[in-house]
Amino acid sequence: MAKSELYKNAGVDIDLATDLLKDVKPLLAATRRSEMLVPVGGFGGLFQIDLSKYKEPVMVSSIDGVGTKLMVAMMMEKYDTVGYDIVNHCINDIAVQGAEPVYFMDYIGIGKLRSPLYEQVLAGIANACKAANCAVLGGETAEMPGMYGNDFDLVGVITGIIEKSKIITGEKIAPGHAAIGINSNGLHTNGFSLARKILFDKAGYSVNDKPAELGGESVGEALLKPHICYYPAIKAALESGISLDGIAHITGGGLYDNVPRILPEGVGVVFDVKDMPVPPIFKLMVEKGEVGHEEAYRVFNMGVGMVWFVPEAEADKAVELINSKGFKACRIGEVIAGSGVVVK
Amino acid sequence: MAKSELYKNAGVDIDLATDLLKDVKPLLAATRRSEMLVPVGGFGGLFQIDLSKYKEPVMVSSIDGVGTKLMVAMMMEKYDTVGYDIVNHCINDIAVQGAEPVYFMDYIGIGKLRSPLYEQVLAGIANACKAANCAVLGGETAEMPGMYGNDFDLVGVITGIIEKSKIITGEKIAPGHAAIGINSNGLHTNGFSLARKILFDKAGYSVNDKPAELGGESVGEALLKPHICYYPAIKAALESGISLDGIAHITGGGLYDNVPRILPEGVGVVFDVKDMPVPPIFKLMVEKGEVGHEEAYRVFNMGVGMVWFVPEAEADKAVELINSKGFKACRIGEVIAGSGVVVK
Repeated sequence: MAKSELYKNAGVDIDLATDLLKDVKPLLAATRRSEMLVPVGGFGGLFQIDLSKYKEPVMVSSIDGVGTKLMVAMMMEKYDTVGYDIVNHCINDIAVQGAEPVYFMDYIGIGKLRSPLYEQVLAGIANACKAANCAVLGGETAEMPGMYGNDFDLVGVITGIIEKSKIITGEKIAPGHAAIGINSNGLHTNGFSLARKILFDKAGYSVNDKPAELGGESVGEALLKPHICYYPAIKAALESGISLDGIAHITGGGLYDNVPRILPEGVGVVFDVKDMPVPPIFKLMVEKGEVGHEEAYRVFNMGVGMVWFVPEAEADKAVELINSKGFKACRIGEVIAGSGVVVK
Repeated sequence: MAKSELYKNAGVDIDLATDLLKDVKPLLAATRRSEMLVPVGGFGGLFQIDLSKYKEPVMVSSIDGVGTKLMVAMMMEKYDTVGYDIVNHCINDIAVQGAEPVYFMDYIGIGKLRSPLYEQVLAGIANACKAANCAVLGGETAEMPGMYGNDFDLVGVITGIIEKSKIITGEKIAPGHAAIGINSNGLHTNGFSLARKILFDKAGYSVNDKPAELGGESVGEALLKPHICYYPAIKAALESGISLDGIAHITGGGLYDNVPRILPEGVGVVFDVKDMPVPPIFKLMVEKGEVGHEEAYRVFNMGVGMVWFVPEAEADKAVELINSKGFKACRIGEVIAGSGVVVK
C-alpha cells in the first residue's frame, strides 16, 4: 500500500530509496500547499485550481535540466545546491511571464542510487520549493547502471498559474523604457561547458584551488553558487503596481539571445553594464580563457541574472523595490527605436 | 527572435537541432489544442483552463522516464517507438485517475545530438500526443557529451485536468467487484533490466534473432513494441456511465505492487488470468530465465496492461465496451473481503 507515496521509483533499490528518503520526506511534505489533494493511488499528483483567485486561469509549464553543472557538483561531492539550481532556474523561467509557481516535479536518472547524493539533491529541491511557496507534487528516480555509470542527471518541471489578462508579454516595451538588471551570483546553470574547459583544462585549476582573483573562495565554490530565484522581486513588483512590461531570464545565450525573445518588432536595446557588479569568477574566466567581450555576454550572464523593462519614469522606483527585497539592481540600458541588442 | 519557438535547446548545436527539427515541427504543431496560447517569449508554455468544462478543475501531473528500454532502441537503431512509450506511459498514469491528458513536455539528455535519433524520438512523441489529443507544450534538449557518452535519456511529463467530483480513487472497490484486464502487447516500459539479462546475457540472443517462440518476430521487435495508450477505453467508459470504480496501470511491480495502490482497506483481489493472452515474449523470458510465477507477475505485466474494477453486474458491459474500442479485455479476477493480491 503506497497511498501517501510522494515518490515513484522505477527500477531502483526500493529499500535503499526508502531509507535515504527518511530524513527528506518531512522537507518534501513541508512544501505542501492547500490546493494539493491527498495523493490518490500514487499515480499522479493532484492540484486544485483556486478559482476564487483567477477569472481566466492559464497554466504555465516549463521543463529544464541542470546540465554539466552536475559534473562540478560531483567533483565537489556536494549535491544540495544543484537542487536549488533546478528549482530556481525553472521558477525564473515562468516568473518572467508573471506566473506564480505552484508545483514542481523532478526526475533523477542515476547509475547507482547513493548517499548523501540522493538526500542532498532532494533536500535542496524541497528547501528551494519551500522558499518559493511551491509544492513538490511528485518526482521520479530511475536507477540505470548501464546508462549513467557513475553520473546522474537532474531534470525539473515547474507549473505556475497566471490570470490571462496579466501575462507579461513584452509587447509594451517601447523606446523610452529603461532596462534594469538584477545581479546574479555566478554562472547560475549556464556556460559550464566553456567554464570547465577554461578553468580545469586550460588554466589547470582543481575545484579546491583558491586563485587570488576569487578573494578566498575556491573555484568549485564559485562555480556551484546556486541559481538565484528572482520570483520574490517580481511578485513584489506586481503587487506594487509598477508597469513591469517585460522580463528576460538571462540563461544560455546571455543578454544577446535572451533579451530579443521578448522584444516587439521595431525596438532594440543598448546595454551599458558598467554599474553592474561582475562576479569575480567571470573576470577570472574572461582573463584565463581570453574570452572576447561579445562571447562573454553570449555564453555567460556576466552578473546580469534577469532584465526588467519598465517605463523610464518608473525605473528608480523599480530599482529601489528590487533592492528592498535583498537583491542588487541597477539600470543597465535603454530601449531604442530600431532592432538588435548591443552591450557596451 | 524566437517568438514561436516550441523547443528550447541548452548547450546543443543549435544549427543542427534546427535542421533536424525541420520535418518534425509540423508534427509537433499538429498537436496544438485550442486552449494553448501563442507562445510568449518562448520561456514557458501557456495553456488556458476551459472553465466551461469544469466547475472545480484539478490538475493532475506525472513525470516518468523510459528507462533501459532505450538501450534496446539503441541496439535496434530505431527510435520512434520510445517516443510513443514515454507519452503513453505518462498518459496511462493519469488516465487511471479519470483525468483527460491535455499537455505533454519532454526532456532529452544526450551525449551527441544526431540524426535520425532526434527526429524519430520527437516524431514518435508528436504522433502519440496527436493520437490522444494531447498538446506538446514544450520540451528541452540538453547535449552533454561528458555525461551521456553515446547514450541518451528520455523523460516525459504529462498534465491532465479532471473535475474534482469525478476523480477515480478506488475507494468504492468492494467485494463483489470484478477485475477486468486489458491486454498489453509486451513489456511496455518495465522489466527491461531482467529482460536484457535473460535474453541477451543468459540466452545469448541478439536483437535480430527470431526464436521460433516469437512466431516470426525478432527479439528486438518484440521488446520494442510501444506502450499501449488505454485512455480511449477509459474515456469511452466514463462517457458511457459505467461505474468505473478503480483503475490500476500495471507498470514496474506488476499486478502485485500496482493493484494494492488503489485498493481500500479490507479488500483483496484473487486474480485468475487464464483467459488473458500472454504475449510470446513473456513466455520466452519465463522459460529461458527460469522465472518463477510470482516473480514473473511482479516484474512484468505478463499481458495485463491495465486492470479495471467495476461492479459485477457491469462487468460484461465493460468488457464489451473495451473490446469495441479495439482493445482486448476479459475478466481476470474478483474482489474479496480480506487483503492482499493473489494471482492464480
